[in-house]
Amino acid sequence: MTHVVTLNAGSSSLKFGLFTLQSDDPVAICTGVVDRIGSEEAHIGAKTSDGRVLGGAVPEGIPDHLEAMNHVLDLLAQQFPGAEIVAVGHRIVHGGPDRDRPILLTPDSLQALEGLSPFAPLHQPYNLQGVRAAIRRFPDAAQVACFDTAFHRSHPWVNDTFALPPEYYEMGVRRYGFHGLSYEYIANHLAKTAPLLHGGRVIVAHLGNGASMCGMINGRSVGSSMGFTALDGLPMGTRCGQLDPGVVLYLMEQKGMSAEEITELLYRKSGLLGLSGLSNDMRTLEQVGTGAARRAISYFNFRARRELGALAAVLGGLDAVVFTGGIGENSVLVRERICGSMGWLGIELDHDANTDHARIISTPLSRVQVMVIPTNEELVIARAAARFVYPEMYQGQLDTAAPDIA
Amino acid sequence: MTHVVTLNAGSSSLKFGLFTLQSDDPVAICTGVVDRIGSEEAHIGAKTSDGRVLGGAVPEGIPDHLEAMNHVLDLLAQQFPGAEIVAVGHRIVHGGPDRDRPILLTPDSLQALEGLSPFAPLHQPYNLQGVRAAIRRFPDAAQVACFDTAFHRSHPWVNDTFALPPEYYEMGVRRYGFHGLSYEYIANHLAKTAPLLHGGRVIVAHLGNGASMCGMINGRSVGSSMGFTALDGLPMGTRCGQLDPGVVLYLMEQKGMSAEEITELLYRKSGLLGLSGLSNDMRTLEQVGTGAARRAISYFNFRARRELGALAAVLGGLDAVVFTGGIGENSVLVRERICGSMGWLGIELDHDANTDHARIISTPLSRVQVMVIPTNEELVIARAAARFVYPEMYQGQLDTAAPDIA
Repeated sequence: MTHVVTLNAGSSSLKFGLFTLQSDDPVAICTGVVDRIGSEEAHIGAKTSDGRVLGGAVPEGIPDHLEAMNHVLDLLAQQFPGAEIVAVGHRIVHGGPDRDRPILLTPDSLQALEGLSPFAPLHQPYNLQGVRAAIRRFPDAAQVACFDTAFHRSHPWVNDTFALPPEYYEMGVRRYGFHGLSYEYIANHLAKTAPLLHGGRVIVAHLGNGASMCGMINGRSVGSSMGFTALDGLPMGTRCGQLDPGVVLYLMEQKGMSAEEITELLYRKSGLLGLSGLSNDMRTLEQVGTGAARRAISYFNFRARRELGALAAVLGGLDAVVFTGGIGENSVLVRERICGSMGWLGIELDHDANTDHARIISTPLSRVQVMVIPTNEELVIARAAARFVYPEMYQGQLDTAAPDIA
Repeated sequence: MTHVVTLNAGSSSLKFGLFTLQSDDPVAICTGVVDRIGSEEAHIGAKTSDGRVLGGAVPEGIPDHLEAMNHVLDLLAQQFPGAEIVAVGHRIVHGGPDRDRPILLTPDSLQALEGLSPFAPLHQPYNLQGVRAAIRRFPDAAQVACFDTAFHRSHPWVNDTFALPPEYYEMGVRRYGFHGLSYEYIANHLAKTAPLLHGGRVIVAHLGNGASMCGMINGRSVGSSMGFTALDGLPMGTRCGQLDPGVVLYLMEQKGMSAEEITELLYRKSGLLGLSGLSNDMRTLEQVGTGAARRAISYFNFRARRELGALAAVLGGLDAVVFTGGIGENSVLVRERICGSMGWLGIELDHDANTDHARIISTPLSRVQVMVIPTNEELVIARAAARFVYPEMYQGQLDTAAPDIA
């Protein structure tokens, strides 16, 4: 039986999946996550398609992603000894200005991706470290890179550029956009389950510990809230989201902060955690209900509404909104606050359906349909990896023409 | 006859006005501008209410704003020898977090405003230099400060804060918003000429060499595109507008640029000038029509549409749009491109009226009314200055309750 492994490294976590390739779409037989990498209380949790729960606490801790991957692969080898791994799919944060689809990793392409590390110094090196370890472990398997930036390469120039002299655009200072694997999953899902909406103007709100929005026409990205780095746009668990560039200059010149200190502040101490002084986790903030927690939630929803309006303008109107990601899939409150005052945009929320986490949470008469669709980045990675081994079988990726907007 | 003088210093210009206080609203008897301060080809241009044209080239050049002010005051003294100056009104860029209206300048308040210079190092010191020179010249006149930030102090907290730890908000890192004198003029004008719209949800697009948008409810600012500095929001003549904070970190860490070099890039070499490589002037870009000029214009309009959608979300819908400022009042093309694809928002542009620069440029059936209203910051300054001398006479400023948005 042939299988693919998917590896999806976050800042302190590693999601993984083992998929079998027996059917016309890869089927997960085990998915899981290693949490709290780098701390002394790491944890591996996984479940199998036949209902078994695997993993547990790792009392000795897991120092880095490399070690986490070895734990994962040991677990899979032990539990699924007959699995033949024909491909490993990696989520890679940055594909650069031109890569608009997954690629097969070779020594050359791996080196090219290393050259992009300055664009994502906190993520790209760790992603590539994981690739190298996987190559050592599975030297005969296809190693496939799936980029968070690839889905957004259909952006028109006006979305990708900043108002800087053209040499900065040429050196790669562009609005790349991220969370592309999640958006690709939603676009494919809509194509299959709601083809009319898929053909229209859709905003997908990927709201998790990282958060962004993507405006799509005909399943292609025409704009997103994230820019050059994963800092911009919506506020996140610990990242600031939109920030006046003058604030960075002020902190340097007037407060004497170094670039490293500002990086630490904007990536790890801001967002929901910074505003609340309490937690980066929306569930925690909703539960405690202190003034600071409520203000942090208000700010999150305010910026999300603002971005929804901005992307509606980019799309020239709106046919559907999709909520996904940990917060988008689970927070009744956040969906209510974002959509509740959007009648002017044609959104009429069905409060009962929202409370019930229904798939469609707008009323039947709402001009804009609002949906909740759980994302599945691992499946997108597995499909991409499978396509490189069995190109005739897994044509899951849609290839419609890029939309044309002025 | 009692008069007030208004002084409005830009980065390389000084606008001025001489107003008589005989009627129920100050009346300009001379207005003008000193251009190209700091270059060797300075110019003073002014016209009087009885049709005379004053000023001319200053072949020896004008080195700084202090010298420019002396030229202006000499010109006014010479042309209007009988004018008794009872007050001087100054446009001051920054009033800090709390000042929500004009203030009388005293040694104490002047010192307090100096303390705000770190927030606007490129403008505040020059503004205050002008104040000191005016005090020396008119020691008996009331010296009144009108702040670009004051009109926006009705913003709710969610608009003013960034997603940073609260200590940054406390130290003054907030979204202040600017161009407040222009917005106050438009709000007052709407109150008098279109009271129903004034009571509704209005977006004012102040598009000039500096550019921003302001969302108002009931004539009060509830949100604006500019943030902590005059860099953020819409792209401008030479300023970048919205920029991922990660770009600043990238330029420092990966490209070795200093804070000074980045400041110079973002304030003086970006925006329309940076994108076009040609000019910061929209008129020039429209005329030359090269590819780079067209791209710069496209980007300007794209970001303006995006911000219009974002502010509509902040307002919870839209009743009117007002264009003002040099570009807003004069560019048929820009108004057309911003409004032309906004049918989804209820905007139906009347193309003939737009071409004719009519006051109302939407169709009679357009759900959102679109207007062109020339701004008059000098009159707002003159009114404020006059109120401090004759408090009973010049109650031009509206004082409605601040709007309540969640």
